[in-house]
Amino acid sequence: MEDFYEKKYLKYKNKYNTVKNSLIGSGSFLKNLIWRRAEKHFSPGPVNIEPIKYAIINAPSSYGIQPFKVFAITNQDLKIKLKEACFNQTQIEESHCLFIFFAIGNLEKRINEYIGKTDFTDKKESMISYVRKLPCPLEWAKMQAYIALGFGMAAAMELNIASCPMEGFKPDEVRKILKLENTDLHPCVLLTVGNKKNDYLLEKRFRFDDLIIDFR
Amino acid sequence: MEDFYEKKYLKYKNKYNTVKNSLIGSGSFLKNLIWRRAEKHFSPGPVNIEPIKYAIINAPSSYGIQPFKVFAITNQDLKIKLKEACFNQTQIEESHCLFIFFAIGNLEKRINEYIGKTDFTDKKESMISYVRKLPCPLEWAKMQAYIALGFGMAAAMELNIASCPMEGFKPDEVRKILKLENTDLHPCVLLTVGNKKNDYLLEKRFRFDDLIIDFR
Repeated sequence: MEDFYEKKYLKYKNKYNTVKNSLIGSGSFLKNLIWRRAEKHFSPGPVNIEPIKYAIINAPSSYGIQPFKVFAITNQDLKIKLKEACFNQTQIEESHCLFIFFAIGNLEKRINEYIGKTDFTDKKESMISYVRKLPCPLEWAKMQAYIALGFGMAAAMELNIASCPMEGFKPDEVRKILKLENTDLHPCVLLTVGNKKNDYLLEKRFRFDDLIIDFR
Repeated sequence: MEDFYEKKYLKYKNKYNTVKNSLIGSGSFLKNLIWRRAEKHFSPGPVNIEPIKYAIINAPSSYGIQPFKVFAITNQDLKIKLKEACFNQTQIEESHCLFIFFAIGNLEKRINEYIGKTDFTDKKESMISYVRKLPCPLEWAKMQAYIALGFGMAAAMELNIASCPMEGFKPDEVRKILKLENTDLHPCVLLTVGNKKNDYLLEKRFRFDDLIIDFR
């Protein structure tokens, strides 16, 4: 195992030892999981956000229709305008980039766009029939966006970029500032990314046997 | 770049070339994204599911409260019983393991469990106040489970294990078969994993400029 990981793990040794054998032969995603946490402050300066965007657009989604859009805001003036709509949380201003994830409400329109860009015309009928049966189409679109949010965080983790997801904001105000009132884009979650600052607490999680129940 | 990735990329060369420069210095998560897709069939035999469980329990969630449980079903009899509740989709039976993600409805109880296991008693009030304001608490819990679903898929990808997420199933029947009718566990998504079988189509995705809008 490389030095980089050894150093990271030293701090979380006990936790790491319980899973070490499972991770032999794995890559950086699994190895990095042990230390990744939301970081509420960033150091100034830019980070490379292109791989984060790449992870977001390559995240899995149901039927592959990716019912969301993501705004990548590095413009400081715009971030400061948005800060108030985000309960003045400091990470908006300190971050290098604020990603805003918007769920798309009109799923049938999105499916038509998808079919227009791919060769999967034979899937259209089953896609349309599936989304028509959804009890909460917009909530479903948000779930797909949350997978992409997770993939964005995983990309940041891999590049040692600090990230902090945020659900605390006023959706209507965000829409207003970005002049999206008459669109079908509904902000559902934010992701701020930037340079690492301080060391941070490793928050506790539920244990294996609380979360995972085996049926062998 | 290692041979392993070079081989994978050969097939998807054009797509890969457009992002290559962004991935210099990155680890296996970003490099693997280009070829990962849902695989609808599996070859027989076991795969190591421990790292997948590890990724699921280490996935980020809002406030860290992980409002979900995951059943890891390798028992073939039980999988076959569940197959009918999943519209007889073959991947249930062919998979080595069927993961069922359940969202937890009672978030305040979950927060109390979280506080009981951690030192973050000072966060309790803000957590409770936050979940009380959620318009759809169960849908929110599902969103958190979807991040964990994504992390499970990323772990499988890293280990060259085939995976297929599934939303097509009858929640009430799944609850009945698993004798969960009187519980607070609500199945929201499935993940089947197993040995890789055939080569599969690289389904098209939306382009960068459709999904990501920059504000520089």
